[in-house]
Amino acid sequence: MDIHNVNSVELRELCCRLLKREGMSGEDALVCADNLVDADLSGVESHGVSRLTNYMKRLKTGVVNHESGYFIEKEYPGSLLIDGGNAMGMAVGKFAMDRCIEKAAENGSCFGAVKHSNHYGTASYYARMAAQRDMIGISATNAPPNIAPWGSSQKYMGTNPIAIAVPTDNEPIVLDMAPSVVAMGKIILAAKLGKTIPEGWVLDPEGNPTTDPQTGQFGTLLPIGGPKGSGIAIMMEVMCGILSGAEFGPHINHFWKDFEHPQNVGHFFSALDISKFVGVKEFKQRLSQMVKEMKELPLGRGMDAIYMPGEIECNRRRERTEQGIDLSDSVYMELKALADEYKVEFDI
Amino acid sequence: MDIHNVNSVELRELCCRLLKREGMSGEDALVCADNLVDADLSGVESHGVSRLTNYMKRLKTGVVNHESGYFIEKEYPGSLLIDGGNAMGMAVGKFAMDRCIEKAAENGSCFGAVKHSNHYGTASYYARMAAQRDMIGISATNAPPNIAPWGSSQKYMGTNPIAIAVPTDNEPIVLDMAPSVVAMGKIILAAKLGKTIPEGWVLDPEGNPTTDPQTGQFGTLLPIGGPKGSGIAIMMEVMCGILSGAEFGPHINHFWKDFEHPQNVGHFFSALDISKFVGVKEFKQRLSQMVKEMKELPLGRGMDAIYMPGEIECNRRRERTEQGIDLSDSVYMELKALADEYKVEFDI
Repeated sequence: MDIHNVNSVELRELCCRLLKREGMSGEDALVCADNLVDADLSGVESHGVSRLTNYMKRLKTGVVNHESGYFIEKEYPGSLLIDGGNAMGMAVGKFAMDRCIEKAAENGSCFGAVKHSNHYGTASYYARMAAQRDMIGISATNAPPNIAPWGSSQKYMGTNPIAIAVPTDNEPIVLDMAPSVVAMGKIILAAKLGKTIPEGWVLDPEGNPTTDPQTGQFGTLLPIGGPKGSGIAIMMEVMCGILSGAEFGPHINHFWKDFEHPQNVGHFFSALDISKFVGVKEFKQRLSQMVKEMKELPLGRGMDAIYMPGEIECNRRRERTEQGIDLSDSVYMELKALADEYKVEFDI
Repeated sequence: MDIHNVNSVELRELCCRLLKREGMSGEDALVCADNLVDADLSGVESHGVSRLTNYMKRLKTGVVNHESGYFIEKEYPGSLLIDGGNAMGMAVGKFAMDRCIEKAAENGSCFGAVKHSNHYGTASYYARMAAQRDMIGISATNAPPNIAPWGSSQKYMGTNPIAIAVPTDNEPIVLDMAPSVVAMGKIILAAKLGKTIPEGWVLDPEGNPTTDPQTGQFGTLLPIGGPKGSGIAIMMEVMCGILSGAEFGPHINHFWKDFEHPQNVGHFFSALDISKFVGVKEFKQRLSQMVKEMKELPLGRGMDAIYMPGEIECNRRRERTEQGIDLSDSVYMELKALADEYKVEFDI
């Protein structure tokens, strides 16, 4: 299969042009483009520009609003309730985390719940925004159903990722995880690329183990730690969906199948200002000590290094920012088709 | 093995008498006794009165302070930094969560980080305090090392449990989980009871799988979902230990081996006031709908029911409050020995 090596800046600009041509504001388009390209830079291709065609279709059909209609509905010193106005999830997410960071800087911490939003890309993007400001950032979202509650064979909760980012003197440490063994994005990408998947990732719609992503993508993802992963997924439905007034579980409309009904996805964002606790200098000093100690531990069997959460993604971002992003031919041609359709320059 | 059925109220009073005789205030002794008996009522015997002998020894040796020396060191509308004053962890925990609840009622949410504390029993106890006040409660703690960071064979992080409790019209839904396949408490109890453990729970100190809790308790617990569970454990070290100024990982002193150096455990507590978001009535109504829908899903293979997180524990609490708690002979005799030593009435 052909590979196209593209420059991340040019790729971001192309996405931005497309989103603006579809009617988004320049600011919101930039946030969306940055979020998608950031995923490709990080090696999380399942959440990268391979999804742009779908995002564009959602804007074009009007199931997602072009306008920046998000606003604060309720505000207290330590909390926000935000209505996303059915805008693009990335734009809503950046707005919400920016407000949480501002409020945490004043009040120590802020927890923001968001309703009437849409798929917001990678959760780590927002958590890292806080880490860049010397805060601990946390974000989570719910999503269409993909995981069965423990005890059942039928999917109900989303893969509901949660991300936590903490600042260091260098790059932040970033955990970004779905409570399933793998994210549904990986099953979808495998289906798209015609690859098989390992057993233990997913059950088919009848509850049988499968290695075929074509049937697996309609089945139930297996949670990590059995009832533990299932419990995390349930709690994220409650904290993202029920607390905010967004939809939850099977009531969230599908991202790449339903172009008539808004998703009404819910998210939460939390920022903790480290200077209001132990202080930034001491925090980073002790965290550096912890990381150093962990990296000096003996390696496990068959392991080649001890990586901190998000370290591999961070290394990839650095590498791909310099060396470019390898896009598959199918994703590259999808982008070209979009450029043709929207009559924007295709120069990647 | 003999079983002694004891009344939970009488058991709580016995624990309270013992802790007061050792020098604790009546209020703090009641909190500690309630936390321990609550664990036995819930079926979490690993964190129940079987640990009282050790808690008493820690007080007697002075490695834990008898005094209620906890205090607020820094305070903002949405945050608290609390110094636990090396008091009993349960007393510190109740103080911290009470303050978070008060502040969340005013400011929407509050996040409290705690240093200079000790083993605080079950995390769910504090999360449920918030749920009883129609708030979402979250609590986590770090603990002496028991889990290796992913990539290593040597334990570094604690089993660092996190609990989330959400209120319903009936009993709260409560997730209380360690990021390991099982909690070390279960290995310890198995060792105490002379039982074997399943493979996949723990590696021995050389990194080999084992079913023997006697060697397993000195090895490394396996995290759920590999790097995911390891990442959760690392983030809980950061949020409980580093953010508060408490110790972390292997620098936390051991709970039942070290009677000279204070543990300096760290915790965090968070309360989210639901009335500042979607509102309590709508929250409970929609949560009831979600629970009903999940319970009506088809059962998985070999499953007999779909339980919400914490539901089994809640049912046990109800049952054992009525029918009494079955204590093993060894735990019963330990309590009797304490009563003899401290010359308090033994009437359970």
